[in-house]
Amino acid sequence: MPSAAPPHGLPLAQRLRAIEPFRVMEILARAKVLEAQGRDIVHMEIGEPDFATPRPICEAGIAALEQGELFYTPALGMPQLREAIAGFYRTRHGIDLAPSRVVVTTGSSGALLLVLAALINPGDQVLMADPGYPANRHFVRLLEGEPVGIAVGPDSRYQLTPALIERHWGSRTVAALVATPSNPAGTLIGHEDIAAMAAHARQRGGALIVDEIYHGLVYEGDARTAVDAGDNVFVINSFSKYFNMTGWRLGWMIAPERHVRDIDKLAQNVFLSAPAPAQYAALAAFAPDTLAICDARREEFRARRDYLVPALRELGFVIPQMPPGAFYVYADCSRFTADSHAFTLDLLEHAGVAITPGIDFGTHRARNHVRFAYTRPIARLREGVRRLRDHLAAPARGL
Amino acid sequence: MPSAAPPHGLPLAQRLRAIEPFRVMEILARAKVLEAQGRDIVHMEIGEPDFATPRPICEAGIAALEQGELFYTPALGMPQLREAIAGFYRTRHGIDLAPSRVVVTTGSSGALLLVLAALINPGDQVLMADPGYPANRHFVRLLEGEPVGIAVGPDSRYQLTPALIERHWGSRTVAALVATPSNPAGTLIGHEDIAAMAAHARQRGGALIVDEIYHGLVYEGDARTAVDAGDNVFVINSFSKYFNMTGWRLGWMIAPERHVRDIDKLAQNVFLSAPAPAQYAALAAFAPDTLAICDARREEFRARRDYLVPALRELGFVIPQMPPGAFYVYADCSRFTADSHAFTLDLLEHAGVAITPGIDFGTHRARNHVRFAYTRPIARLREGVRRLRDHLAAPARGL
Repeated sequence: MPSAAPPHGLPLAQRLRAIEPFRVMEILARAKVLEAQGRDIVHMEIGEPDFATPRPICEAGIAALEQGELFYTPALGMPQLREAIAGFYRTRHGIDLAPSRVVVTTGSSGALLLVLAALINPGDQVLMADPGYPANRHFVRLLEGEPVGIAVGPDSRYQLTPALIERHWGSRTVAALVATPSNPAGTLIGHEDIAAMAAHARQRGGALIVDEIYHGLVYEGDARTAVDAGDNVFVINSFSKYFNMTGWRLGWMIAPERHVRDIDKLAQNVFLSAPAPAQYAALAAFAPDTLAICDARREEFRARRDYLVPALRELGFVIPQMPPGAFYVYADCSRFTADSHAFTLDLLEHAGVAITPGIDFGTHRARNHVRFAYTRPIARLREGVRRLRDHLAAPARGL
Repeated sequence: MPSAAPPHGLPLAQRLRAIEPFRVMEILARAKVLEAQGRDIVHMEIGEPDFATPRPICEAGIAALEQGELFYTPALGMPQLREAIAGFYRTRHGIDLAPSRVVVTTGSSGALLLVLAALINPGDQVLMADPGYPANRHFVRLLEGEPVGIAVGPDSRYQLTPALIERHWGSRTVAALVATPSNPAGTLIGHEDIAAMAAHARQRGGALIVDEIYHGLVYEGDARTAVDAGDNVFVINSFSKYFNMTGWRLGWMIAPERHVRDIDKLAQNVFLSAPAPAQYAALAAFAPDTLAICDARREEFRARRDYLVPALRELGFVIPQMPPGAFYVYADCSRFTADSHAFTLDLLEHAGVAITPGIDFGTHRARNHVRFAYTRPIARLREGVRRLRDHLAAPARGL
């Protein structure tokens, strides 16, 4: 009998103990129950734009579906899409990039799985910010690596720094993973810091993985891509957020040339290919009319942010920096609670406002934080803030 | 420095040494080069139906794209699709299945990753047939498990048997993985054998994973599904083959009820959701007009098989059993060569016929076998056979 066999008689992988469901799913499920009972819920928990996919992208997809020839594509992606992505780095970032370095993936999740599978052996460590996107540590655990969460706070804008990477890089560390703009804080890392992190990783024989999936959604500051920050840098991006293609499951990675062959054989085995309908549709993503739509929506996100952050601060949430990117606000709620998870459940139940508890993003001061997403129109954000104000002012909750 | 660091200064996972690219990709790439030079190539290497996706499926997809609201779906799949899949087991197999056991996945590859991630710890063994679908052993290796290929041949129709599973099940074995119909041999496992394998696995505290992705493409014999073969059975299926949706990347799994929660949290982290365009489109897959198209195409596959197998036998290939399913013929070519890989390269170069070498499917007598796919119209198969005949008759190749 395998030693891991639980009472029910089937094996169970140890990794399941370390891989947690997103708590926000519990919030979302409860919100749906309340809505089914006729309650109105203001959704500020959802990490997904509320905009439909831009029409030109859908039209390109429809043209492919009219043809009906949705066969497997090469594992690294359709050549014309890889070229279009490389072209986007040229036109938007002024960077010349060989299309051979572009790997089209099944969402940025697919990219993350491929790069980690190519880099880590059992027990190898990957450094990452705590708080951070929760699936990152779970991907590392899935592959029997050890995610090392490094506590970060307002003093580093909730980001890793070159100094933190230097301090925490150990003999089993093979990579550091950063996100700019980040989830949950929406903050950036400057290009000099990225380059310094890449250089340190390189000196230690390791890689730097840079998650740029919110890269199109930057409202101010340095939004330079990391693709030219070093020959040990893997950049991950996605059509989900800026291009409003979440459900299509399409992302990409810019890999160092010498790693592409290994990533190709992993992709052949694990994914066969990224979804063909999404690849055909995404060929229209870089057209001027599509980019105009996406940029207009970015301005709408900016307007929401410019409304929401001051409003939350006025209520008593502590938000050290105006978040320059993504569509999230990571707020210190310790004025109201020492248990932000209970706080979010209470808020949903009694005020009809859904937000995400800090524990979804790690352990460091997680119980003092919540995440607001501004993925709903301003009118709904106003309604959410109004409910929050009433809820927090109620005597039993003692402001 | 990590001990695995290669000379170029970046870490490299050991698993990359065990995970091989599909040799058929090399054949396909060379075929494309020859075609670009003006050569006509008969493709009998491709494991993908040549039929476009049935029109009603495309139309359902187009309707969703017209709406444009392609958001993330629940990680386990859209509820209405899970219900439709459960309904298909009722109407086609007469089996009552709770929709809660249906997990919609990113291709059957996604299902395989999820079930193996839920079951295996490092060093755990998974039994599988050699020859078999090559990605199976690579998935196990990806998750740090140990794939155990069991040599099978004509005497068991290239399939595992209850006796083989009993003989090879060891203290670290947690699961056996079988496919019916199989790739590369297209053979079936009878329901009694499936039930006996499940019972043995259960007695040893393990699981049986049954790949039924070619299940709609069965031309004779017992095509009963394994979903009711035991409470430790995971059945994997796909919209790719019978429903001609390869590029859409959509599959499903029927899991034991008590494992669904673990699979859900893995799917949340690893995939977020299966592609939404494919899920909307697949809602039309079980409609009577779609099934009529798919069944007509199955009859076309049968006609191709009925032409190809006798023709290959006449040329001198040994095919012990008329393959009852899938669209493959696994043929012993030892009359012509002791190195089937070189044979396939030579055949492509000099006869313009592309087929797959046995080494893509394992090591057991791999150099004596090749796989033919009948995924092209009969006229092309005839042309391929004609070229084969001429090639094999040429004096230098000495028949």
